[in-house]
Amino acid sequence: MQTGVCYFPEHWPRERWETDVEQMAEAGLEYVRMAEFSWGVLEPERDEFAFEWLDEAVSLIGEYGMQAVLCTPTATPPKWLVDEHPEILQEDPDGTVREHGSRRHYCFNSERYREETERIVRRVAERYAENPHVAGFQTDNEYGCHFTVRCYCDDCAAAFRSWLKEKYDTIAELNTAWGNRFWSQQYDSFEAIDPPGPTPAEHHPSRLLEYARFASDSVVEYNRLHVELLTEANPEWFVTHNFMGRFPTLDAYAVSEDLDLVSWDSYPTGFVQDRQHDEATPDQLRAGNPDQIGMDHDLYRSTLDRPFWVMEQQPGDVNWPPHCPQPGEGAMRLWAHHATAHGADAVCYFRWRRCLEGQEQYHAGLRKQDGSPDRGYHDAVRAGTELQAIGDGPIENVDASVALLFDYDALWALSAQPHAPEFDYWELLEAFYGAARSRGVQVDVIHPSFALDDYELLLAPALHLVTDDLAKRLTAYVEEGGRILFGPRTGVKDEYNKLRPTLQPGPLSDLVGATVDQHGSFPSRMERTVTPVAEDDEQYAARTWAEWLDPDDAELRFTYQSEGIEFGRPAVVENTVGDGTVVYCGVWPGPDLADELVRPLLADASLPYSEQLPQGVRIGARAGHTWITNFSSERYRIVARTDASWVVGDDTLEAFDVAVAEGNLVDGLSIEPV
Amino acid sequence: MQTGVCYFPEHWPRERWETDVEQMAEAGLEYVRMAEFSWGVLEPERDEFAFEWLDEAVSLIGEYGMQAVLCTPTATPPKWLVDEHPEILQEDPDGTVREHGSRRHYCFNSERYREETERIVRRVAERYAENPHVAGFQTDNEYGCHFTVRCYCDDCAAAFRSWLKEKYDTIAELNTAWGNRFWSQQYDSFEAIDPPGPTPAEHHPSRLLEYARFASDSVVEYNRLHVELLTEANPEWFVTHNFMGRFPTLDAYAVSEDLDLVSWDSYPTGFVQDRQHDEATPDQLRAGNPDQIGMDHDLYRSTLDRPFWVMEQQPGDVNWPPHCPQPGEGAMRLWAHHATAHGADAVCYFRWRRCLEGQEQYHAGLRKQDGSPDRGYHDAVRAGTELQAIGDGPIENVDASVALLFDYDALWALSAQPHAPEFDYWELLEAFYGAARSRGVQVDVIHPSFALDDYELLLAPALHLVTDDLAKRLTAYVEEGGRILFGPRTGVKDEYNKLRPTLQPGPLSDLVGATVDQHGSFPSRMERTVTPVAEDDEQYAARTWAEWLDPDDAELRFTYQSEGIEFGRPAVVENTVGDGTVVYCGVWPGPDLADELVRPLLADASLPYSEQLPQGVRIGARAGHTWITNFSSERYRIVARTDASWVVGDDTLEAFDVAVAEGNLVDGLSIEPV
Amino acid sequence: MQTGVCYFPEHWPRERWETDVEQMAEAGLEYVRMAEFSWGVLEPERDEFAFEWLDEAVSLIGEYGMQAVLCTPTATPPKWLVDEHPEILQEDPDGTVREHGSRRHYCFNSERYREETERIVRRVAERYAENPHVAGFQTDNEYGCHFTVRCYCDDCAAAFRSWLKEKYDTIAELNTAWGNRFWSQQYDSFEAIDPPGPTPAEHHPSRLLEYARFASDSVVEYNRLHVELLTEANPEWFVTHNFMGRFPTLDAYAVSEDLDLVSWDSYPTGFVQDRQHDEATPDQLRAGNPDQIGMDHDLYRSTLDRPFWVMEQQPGDVNWPPHCPQPGEGAMRLWAHHATAHGADAVCYFRWRRCLEGQEQYHAGLRKQDGSPDRGYHDAVRAGTELQAIGDGPIENVDASVALLFDYDALWALSAQPHAPEFDYWELLEAFYGAARSRGVQVDVIHPSFALDDYELLLAPALHLVTDDLAKRLTAYVEEGGRILFGPRTGVKDEYNKLRPTLQPGPLSDLVGATVDQHGSFPSRMERTVTPVAEDDEQYAARTWAEWLDPDDAELRFTYQSEGIEFGRPAVVENTVGDGTVVYCGVWPGPDLADELVRPLLADASLPYSEQLPQGVRIGARAGHTWITNFSSERYRIVARTDASWVVGDDTLEAFDVAVAEGNLVDGLSIEPV
Repeated sequence: MQTGVCYFPEHWPRERWETDVEQMAEAGLEYVRMAEFSWGVLEPERDEFAFEWLDEAVSLIGEYGMQAVLCTPTATPPKWLVDEHPEILQEDPDGTVREHGSRRHYCFNSERYREETERIVRRVAERYAENPHVAGFQTDNEYGCHFTVRCYCDDCAAAFRSWLKEKYDTIAELNTAWGNRFWSQQYDSFEAIDPPGPTPAEHHPSRLLEYARFASDSVVEYNRLHVELLTEANPEWFVTHNFMGRFPTLDAYAVSEDLDLVSWDSYPTGFVQDRQHDEATPDQLRAGNPDQIGMDHDLYRSTLDRPFWVMEQQPGDVNWPPHCPQPGEGAMRLWAHHATAHGADAVCYFRWRRCLEGQEQYHAGLRKQDGSPDRGYHDAVRAGTELQAIGDGPIENVDASVALLFDYDALWALSAQPHAPEFDYWELLEAFYGAARSRGVQVDVIHPSFALDDYELLLAPALHLVTDDLAKRLTAYVEEGGRILFGPRTGVKDEYNKLRPTLQPGPLSDLVGATVDQHGSFPSRMERTVTPVAEDDEQYAARTWAEWLDPDDAELRFTYQSEGIEFGRPAVVENTVGDGTVVYCGVWPGPDLADELVRPLLADASLPYSEQLPQGVRIGARAGHTWITNFSSERYRIVARTDASWVVGDDTLEAFDVAVAEGNLVDGLSIEPV
Repeated sequence: MQTGVCYFPEHWPRERWETDVEQMAEAGLEYVRMAEFSWGVLEPERDEFAFEWLDEAVSLIGEYGMQAVLCTPTATPPKWLVDEHPEILQEDPDGTVREHGSRRHYCFNSERYREETERIVRRVAERYAENPHVAGFQTDNEYGCHFTVRCYCDDCAAAFRSWLKEKYDTIAELNTAWGNRFWSQQYDSFEAIDPPGPTPAEHHPSRLLEYARFASDSVVEYNRLHVELLTEANPEWFVTHNFMGRFPTLDAYAVSEDLDLVSWDSYPTGFVQDRQHDEATPDQLRAGNPDQIGMDHDLYRSTLDRPFWVMEQQPGDVNWPPHCPQPGEGAMRLWAHHATAHGADAVCYFRWRRCLEGQEQYHAGLRKQDGSPDRGYHDAVRAGTELQAIGDGPIENVDASVALLFDYDALWALSAQPHAPEFDYWELLEAFYGAARSRGVQVDVIHPSFALDDYELLLAPALHLVTDDLAKRLTAYVEEGGRILFGPRTGVKDEYNKLRPTLQPGPLSDLVGATVDQHGSFPSRMERTVTPVAEDDEQYAARTWAEWLDPDDAELRFTYQSEGIEFGRPAVVENTVGDGTVVYCGVWPGPDLADELVRPLLADASLPYSEQLPQGVRIGARAGHTWITNFSSERYRIVARTDASWVVGDDTLEAFDVAVAEGNLVDGLSIEPV
Repeated sequence: MQTGVCYFPEHWPRERWETDVEQMAEAGLEYVRMAEFSWGVLEPERDEFAFEWLDEAVSLIGEYGMQAVLCTPTATPPKWLVDEHPEILQEDPDGTVREHGSRRHYCFNSERYREETERIVRRVAERYAENPHVAGFQTDNEYGCHFTVRCYCDDCAAAFRSWLKEKYDTIAELNTAWGNRFWSQQYDSFEAIDPPGPTPAEHHPSRLLEYARFASDSVVEYNRLHVELLTEANPEWFVTHNFMGRFPTLDAYAVSEDLDLVSWDSYPTGFVQDRQHDEATPDQLRAGNPDQIGMDHDLYRSTLDRPFWVMEQQPGDVNWPPHCPQPGEGAMRLWAHHATAHGADAVCYFRWRRCLEGQEQYHAGLRKQDGSPDRGYHDAVRAGTELQAIGDGPIENVDASVALLFDYDALWALSAQPHAPEFDYWELLEAFYGAARSRGVQVDVIHPSFALDDYELLLAPALHLVTDDLAKRLTAYVEEGGRILFGPRTGVKDEYNKLRPTLQPGPLSDLVGATVDQHGSFPSRMERTVTPVAEDDEQYAARTWAEWLDPDDAELRFTYQSEGIEFGRPAVVENTVGDGTVVYCGVWPGPDLADELVRPLLADASLPYSEQLPQGVRIGARAGHTWITNFSSERYRIVARTDASWVVGDDTLEAFDVAVAEGNLVDGLSIEPV
């Protein structure tokens, strides 16, 4: 395991640099990421380049035995470039220009900006192609941050039309594929199609889905340009991109195909405030939600089925969420361990020192504004030492037997037609994911097109768009002994976001052994409950979405118990197909129901699992070790089935603490309050 | 009573049509509405018309003994037309264009669009002028849906100026009428007047009221164009328009003057979520609010004092409200009966089959997406059979002795100056309307200019703008023995939305026998209470608005009991004028206070009324029958004064159930929980 | 003490004027303000002036022994002027024009509008230069109302660039001062700098602060133009401006420097609804929050260290807040006394009579719409008589020994980076201000650059930007025996809104004897508590912001007691420097903690203070009298240490009542519930 830090030498006097770099080396840091917003310093005027400062910084880093990770500085085109070519700016749907003055103001489809990108990336890449201290490159920075994947400018309009022409032979084919007869929405040519602007009523869902795909593809294409230039300059470099948490507009699988290494930026107390609908608990405000962060770790690990990096690890308080409470004692150490347990090969902290200027002054660094060590510094040093002890360099990747099927098309389709304000696909995924994680089970987060054979169990909530081909692959998977747990809103649409002329789940109906008779959505004040057919005195909470089923071959598992027309009707069914098992759950399950669905499938697959873990505690086995991480302020005792050999900590978990033992202790492990 | 359905043959393969039409006929449906969004199919390119498909669909409908209702397809100008003439599009106040990509994107004042309208309507009308299977025409579709009555484009600016020139002789007259001295808002010519755009502070209320009138008039004029063309083609056709629930921007009385038949689109579980401020209860999410829907039925019945149609009846779950729970068991049947009890002559369901394409995929039909019967189908067949049994064809209209005075001018004036976020004129109307309905009394919802003589009682909450002429008519009505219950904010303004230089209620002061001393508004956390002068241990809740009165001739009925400066002051007074009675209520009454005000007036008028009905149960007498409808999930027993002869159901009301008895059972009827 | 009224003769028939003016004189009013929105009447067409009406009104006022206060009518440029020169209109950041149709639609930086201003002001000033009945002039009206200080039009862009050029020698200097290396935000020329428009992410805080300063300066400059023209016409006139409550965008200190007299418009029940985040209590809806209004009185008194005027006093219900409950019995009298206790020399009511036209019809006057006396009239007459009895003309100003340091730069910087949605600088100021006021202590609200020597105690919460010079002045103040209570977020930034490279409180660290180790912000559901080191069984509530401190010389006073990483760490410290004392409080204190901090400092300074007053009662000593004002509906008994001689009322305070005694009774006074 390795650690690193993000550094902005351009923000500090040169005479300070060596002190900084020396302190980094002392802290055990191995990588220093730099230059992602440096265009204005590297090229203060057109064609007047100033690389010396970066040369010197890289040299210093090398002198102190560390490696630099450099970035293409395209996330912040300087003002002179914007003034020369204002057409590179993004536009809102209503034509409002997204102006210079922050970052990410360029359009991915601007031909002009692609030329400028090529110019600057080539220049940077060539400058460092032979430099022995540069380990690799990050492309741009956090594509999509600040809702910038989707732009609505004229360049995008033109690019969208080209993209559609490539996909559809004729405009008639497109009209049919989308169903444009509806409300007289036919186009008579590709030229007639615009990006979706302001309209009196909601947009056509097929048009929206295609625009979402197009916009994401634009980023993929733009990123590929960077990758090609960098690889051309030095094929030895790793090329990565730092995804920013989870963004709902960018297909991370597609971007990752062009990368050697996937990395992401992890801000647990930020994300828990602005990317989850439930109000953050005090403990979550101190350390984040381990399943939210964990699912992102797993997503980025699964993109290439390879260990990932945390390119930016929250170092303390941050500026951008609504509130910035101080993280709990040791939280920064906890996050580094948690990332490792999920498959991280490196954790780099953002940033070295609190910045004196600009938008991020209220963002902590490992060092305070005066250069003295901050809380994150002590945590980072401790975590680095502990992790080094576990493995000095890359360690074996996580080996998961359970996969969560995640599809950006489903995300985009459901976002266009949520039919309940509370319906958030990510959170539905977490409801199923969390059930496995609360049993200590590692989970890959894969695209449905990925190979399925290695998994014992697939979790597939709201697998909304299902092609015949996917249906066949899933059926074959089950017939050969696989297990699938489907969640609600599965099998609803074709690939163009149209309803199928068969009942839900469409091409999966035989596999599921049932069809959906009706669906409905509910506000939170109308919680639904279901009861198992065997023990009808038990009740399990469910929410938001309720489908009642019409079982054919499938066996009834749960019926609705809550008042209303659903009462007594089938909510969950189970089917046996070939050597495998399929469960279809028509509701958004609460944690206990999700556990009742997942646990038997784990047992059936003979996968080791723990006792149900407390909300804030998560465990993970990797590379011959087991991590137990505590995201809560409670103290716990760890009770393992076998004697544990502790590498970090011991069987007492303090608040926000971590323990690491040798071997895989998951089976039967329990966590007890002290 | 008759039933029908809305059908989109253009969405389905021709080979399917006959099956569909045959099934419609089997289901007892008599009318099939078609083609309201079909412009793109009827005229795929300019002047290339394709009517054959519609010809064939009409023929099939005729063959199976049904009648077609066709529509002018103007609600969805196709893309080629928008591209040719982008000036037909609407604009927001800030100039943002409302683009193609949904529906209702045209401006009512576009001369170009009127020409295009004339062209297509004439073509459609001529095509079917001689067709024996076309019963009538619907103009356009749901004028005003998606907030499209008010547009702010250049065409509207010009039309607004013309409209004003027609109304005012000189600009000086307008300046005086509006009071434009205030804040130096004088105009020096009609050309200087724009539609109300974005301004630093709020707009002049007189200008806003005139713009609201103008915008509504634009729709009236635009609709008249359709009516004239259709009537010219075939004077035998009925011409209707389908109003969409209640819209706050379109004067339904004015539009209706040009129609033969008024129809509207009823979506009980949708409206209860997005057109009422109170959170919908679970029962309302299952079946809607009977008074909300009932008041709309009554409004549309009263426009022409003639039975109306429900042109679109919700058939199951719908896509557009926040949540889409399944309606309660039998709700679709319940709504058909409820509509009939309120004066419907026909109920047409929207739509035949769940659509596979476009924006309404999550909107149920009578048949599911695979063509199999859906819940609404069974309900519709049952309701059809039951209603057919009551009367095979048109039955006698509702005969109401109570009228609610409803004035769009008041709505527009109060919307511009609510002076409490909770002040919603429609909901205030419902507070008074509901009191009559909770006693089983039928209510006409009439414009104040309508004939008043046939009514025993007028309810007039917030009759905000009162001309001298109206004051005279109301006074004459009372002198001749009539009864009026005024609600708060009555008699405040002149016809230009200016205050009068006399105390409220201005020209009604003599009639009321009191003036308003002070008014105030209150947030919901400051509920007001009043107490009757006779029994001051009783307290009645009131809300939002409180006027205290200065009685002259009038007698004191209720005083304020809640803490604050109102305490002890007059809240409700009663006056005797000629042979009649006037009650003025200065507060927004809760249900019990409203009942305390309405019941004695019903008794005084010797009108039959029931015991106070539970919130979810409503009764209605029409054409020699009494309907008892249950919009709740409770079971009830119906206790009538006389032996009932049941035509539908019996004296036990299940959840969401209906019973129909012969005769008028209203007097003394009570509904008791089982 | 004097009283006056605002009058719009142009809204009423001439034959009414004399009646009105006669009634004003009878009511004891001495000043009549007129003409602030009269441009359209004064100049109905370009260069066609109509002054006769105003001449006549001024004459009448003089005839009845009163004085006119006239206004420059620039707040409402008429439509003909806007049509001639649409470039005078303001623009939103996205370019949306703020159109004619309300008021304040002109841009302060429009050269054209400055010329027009000069033309009309000169004309008005010359007209009345010799008129013996005009006492003085008000410039424009409520600068900044409706968020109009900041405009984003091309004129503003140009003016901003000039303003920057004047401030910075070179663009390089600006880039360095702001820290534009961050995110490549360097400019290559002043011409490259725009007003802050729509951007993907948040703006650079230094750019925002400079734009805020520039926009405020634009108003200062624009106002100076009026002052110069008026003074030139008649140097005897007083020139004032009526500030509207508190606006977060306009530096009232800077505007006031050019004025002879500062006045403001006080709407207690309006401001409590729309300028405070806490929900208004029922009592506050009836009379406002005395500390909110009181702090504004004190701010405007402190601008010139001179008595101020209330140019518009709320006369009853008003139209613009969400709700308009009737003020409590006597509230209008209460407000007049309260203003006097805070240093008002005159109270003018807005308006004489409820207006029949335009946007303010729902705004009460002293007379109702029919001309009869309204509630405010009776209150005003009574207050006038009572206040006249205390002093017939100007009385001695308030003499405060405590000052609250208030800095618009801090306000603007904190608004750009609140880092907690609840963080409102004004409300934090009130937390400290309220502690002094709840002890009956008068407080000046001064800019940090003002002379400090006369004060015994300075309250300085969130003194966010601290220059070395200010640090020196504060240190000198303490060394000479002064006392300072600092609040959280003090000493964070340099004058360009950049962090300092030293720990907070930067240049104040020696004075405070401690530095800030960490800070965090919290949602309201995570209230913080602190405990005094001496008595750790006491707990005091705090909120929103929590800094934990690292004391050097300072003594520990309070530590955190609430759960979380702050627990046990220093929250409040105290330091002795020279002859003085400094307390630094790292939290936003609740009322009891604020009292625990302020009271000992008052005692230390031997300042007289009362027992802790109930929330709604405030007292104030001025000019040899003590006012006790009750903003609550409770009854109280006043218990003074010495026998009181009552000039108004007595020792029983009714709801919304006032009592005035001779002498200064503050010391030890207590208010007890009856």
